[in-house]
Amino acid sequence: MSYAQLEALGRKLEAVDHAIAILSADEATNMPVGGGEKRAEAVAHLAGLRHETFTAPEIADWLDAAKSEDLSAEQKLSLAEFERVYTNATCLPADFVREQTRTNMRSEQLWRDLRAKNDWAGFAPALESVVALAREEAAMRADKLGLAPYDAMMEQYDPGNRAAEIAPIFDQLKTFLVDFVPEALENQADLPLKPVTGPFAIEDQRALGLAMMAALGFDFTHGRLDVSHHPFCGGVPTDVRMTTRYRTDEFLTALMGILHETGHALYEQGLPRDLSHMPVGKARGMAIHESQSLFVEQQLARTEPFWHWALPHLQEHLGADALPGWMAQDVLARVNMVERGFIRVDADEVTYPLHIILRFEIEQDLISGALSVVDLPEVWDAKMEAYLGLKTIDNPADGPMQDVHWPAGAFGYFPSYTLGAMMAAQQWAAIEKAHPSLNDDIARGDFHAVNAWRSEHIWQQASRYSTPELLTRATGAPLDPQFFIAHLKKRYG
Amino acid sequence: MSYAQLEALGRKLEAVDHAIAILSADEATNMPVGGGEKRAEAVAHLAGLRHETFTAPEIADWLDAAKSEDLSAEQKLSLAEFERVYTNATCLPADFVREQTRTNMRSEQLWRDLRAKNDWAGFAPALESVVALAREEAAMRADKLGLAPYDAMMEQYDPGNRAAEIAPIFDQLKTFLVDFVPEALENQADLPLKPVTGPFAIEDQRALGLAMMAALGFDFTHGRLDVSHHPFCGGVPTDVRMTTRYRTDEFLTALMGILHETGHALYEQGLPRDLSHMPVGKARGMAIHESQSLFVEQQLARTEPFWHWALPHLQEHLGADALPGWMAQDVLARVNMVERGFIRVDADEVTYPLHIILRFEIEQDLISGALSVVDLPEVWDAKMEAYLGLKTIDNPADGPMQDVHWPAGAFGYFPSYTLGAMMAAQQWAAIEKAHPSLNDDIARGDFHAVNAWRSEHIWQQASRYSTPELLTRATGAPLDPQFFIAHLKKRYG
Repeated sequence: MSYAQLEALGRKLEAVDHAIAILSADEATNMPVGGGEKRAEAVAHLAGLRHETFTAPEIADWLDAAKSEDLSAEQKLSLAEFERVYTNATCLPADFVREQTRTNMRSEQLWRDLRAKNDWAGFAPALESVVALAREEAAMRADKLGLAPYDAMMEQYDPGNRAAEIAPIFDQLKTFLVDFVPEALENQADLPLKPVTGPFAIEDQRALGLAMMAALGFDFTHGRLDVSHHPFCGGVPTDVRMTTRYRTDEFLTALMGILHETGHALYEQGLPRDLSHMPVGKARGMAIHESQSLFVEQQLARTEPFWHWALPHLQEHLGADALPGWMAQDVLARVNMVERGFIRVDADEVTYPLHIILRFEIEQDLISGALSVVDLPEVWDAKMEAYLGLKTIDNPADGPMQDVHWPAGAFGYFPSYTLGAMMAAQQWAAIEKAHPSLNDDIARGDFHAVNAWRSEHIWQQASRYSTPELLTRATGAPLDPQFFIAHLKKRYG
Repeated sequence: MSYAQLEALGRKLEAVDHAIAILSADEATNMPVGGGEKRAEAVAHLAGLRHETFTAPEIADWLDAAKSEDLSAEQKLSLAEFERVYTNATCLPADFVREQTRTNMRSEQLWRDLRAKNDWAGFAPALESVVALAREEAAMRADKLGLAPYDAMMEQYDPGNRAAEIAPIFDQLKTFLVDFVPEALENQADLPLKPVTGPFAIEDQRALGLAMMAALGFDFTHGRLDVSHHPFCGGVPTDVRMTTRYRTDEFLTALMGILHETGHALYEQGLPRDLSHMPVGKARGMAIHESQSLFVEQQLARTEPFWHWALPHLQEHLGADALPGWMAQDVLARVNMVERGFIRVDADEVTYPLHIILRFEIEQDLISGALSVVDLPEVWDAKMEAYLGLKTIDNPADGPMQDVHWPAGAFGYFPSYTLGAMMAAQQWAAIEKAHPSLNDDIARGDFHAVNAWRSEHIWQQASRYSTPELLTRATGAPLDPQFFIAHLKKRYG
């Protein structure tokens, strides 16, 4: 039984993935500084072992043989996904991967140093090497997968994403946003901002975060909340490791971070348990994952009904005097503040997509060869000026050097963020259509309807379908930017 | 180069061991309850992988070939220890190990249930199966190692331990203790006990524990202190995971536990870093490990000079009013209280060895076949009465059912505890001979001399020598019970 062999292989991979996931979470939350070198060796060994185990040539035979076995419809979907993941993992020769890993690691290290020094000239040659290898990688992936080179890169993060489908959607969104950003800025101009007066004790913030997580459906028998320098959601579906980072002068950054990561965590905890060892049982990809975190953050937690319910909890945990006289609108005025800025990770939900569209446009040209690394600062500057009215030419550290993605060789990843935001809006619309009183539920802190819908249509579907197909099956329509545009108009228009 | 192949293999094993150690520590300290099943699968897979990697037949060829390579004296010691560990790991056929693992796991599970019910009759058949397999195991190990069966079992925990050498030493100690216990009890009869009045806040106790650990030399860049149900010292030498367990009504149990585990931690942190991937670079064994924890606990922390230094720290961390009017003697009266009891793990340092000697005598007869499981309660009861004046015949839960070792199939482990206590006393005597003012150091909280000596003679020696040889090289003499006897006489006589 070849299918059974694939299941046994899946269990081995799951065990190694479990170890790597928990070791990585522990590294970020618990490990003393001197443990790093041996930890890196241990994780590298396990990752190598995983790659070796998963790319063994006999797996191709098992996949072929399994196709003629008597499989259920479910098993056929599982087999197809197994083959897709295997094909993606075996696109590149081992020698190439080794060279690329070395090059990308050196580039990322150099980037950490030179970004702090705003030294584009010093960094550009390293990025050129990374881009050259990424072009080779894209060509090899394209060849094996029968896709266009940039599509073959996106395929790693969101199976089924195609630039030809995404580009017109991003163009609509861009056209809308370039006009809408000034409008949103003007609309918020005379909103009064109540001061936030700390200090807010970390244990109070933590208790508040835990209470919010529990209310949203986080299962504390299968996960926990820790602290790390960069917030993340890691671990495994039966043991989700979520983190945040506290400051004592204000609490909204940490809390909004917790709400975002809770969205990721609910997805992982909501995956089908009995398929956890097979590729078909994993989360679908980056865009869908981001749609789940942004669903909680943008569709639930940046709304008036949510804060109607949440505000008393804030006051309960942070002390009755913490936010004197605050109403839901006062929280919203802070968490939904729009601002033109250089930095993607600091951007609000209105300007954020423009940061992404800029990168999507540029990285396609970097991969195709239409754009050289040497011309990157000028192109970046021109687009930033056109989209957000900001000049970056004298400040590459806050321009094309700001993200780790390209220095580390990750091309095709950026679109996922904004696709996720759009998908979250489209999912909200679908749920609200089925449950017209959804906002009343949220205002009572009742998240059963949103979670039941997402469990049925997203979480439990895991990786049965491609990213576009999953969204279409869930919401009844392909990705349509009008849902997200309507969402922004309603909130900021 | 076969020796180089062994080094490469050592690095692989170290990586897998690292993963298992950290996953296990995380399981006890951080893992949410629902994560257990998948964690167990992951650790079992890694353990299986480790066994498979380490018992590959080609390793025997590498070991043989390496012997004719041009090796340094250091490398020859390393090769010998590699071969010793490999031989111990390949004594048993895989089928036997599988059957034994199943039998021992079932027995241990049954024991957890039936011990709580004090049901010896229900449990005895399971223990009989365990003992039958342990006899087979001992015979196979004996055959491969050229040792007597019980010695072959001890060899797993303390290389070089031989019953013929230990038995007369334990006999001397037993003869002394049977008379000495009543004397010690009488001596403490009119010691006044100051009351301990809590509550003691957990964060204060933790801060106190951390301060004591730091003073004793614990390196917080290579380790941390957490909380778990059963205190342990785990992790890896570059990332030692130590735990304790707090109660708020008193603080001495947690603190003494921290001091004990700190002894284990210092040993792990003090092992030679550049040999961490080779068997020769690991801690020597259970008896030496226990000698390091008991050195801190019994030789340092149960003494007047130690509390002369430590008492102000207690008052600083727990509050000035915590121990009103306490002197070092008042702490000692509590931590050094002698009591005849049924339970080994609750025993003080005077009565503890009698619990061990009883088990040592019984398990030799269980392995040889001279004693049947069915007769165990009577034998236990007779020895408990002879050694400690206590009857256990009606209470098997607190008699032969009290420990997990035999139900889990671990025979030959018990002697390590008391050997460790004796070795700690012998080490103290050796250090004091070289540094006559040692007690003045301790009274100032200066542990440099004890740590420097132990680093040079124990920690940095790692597994270069057998257990008896290591002690002899370190202290200048083979194990001699008179050091421990003198220690007890001085403290309790």
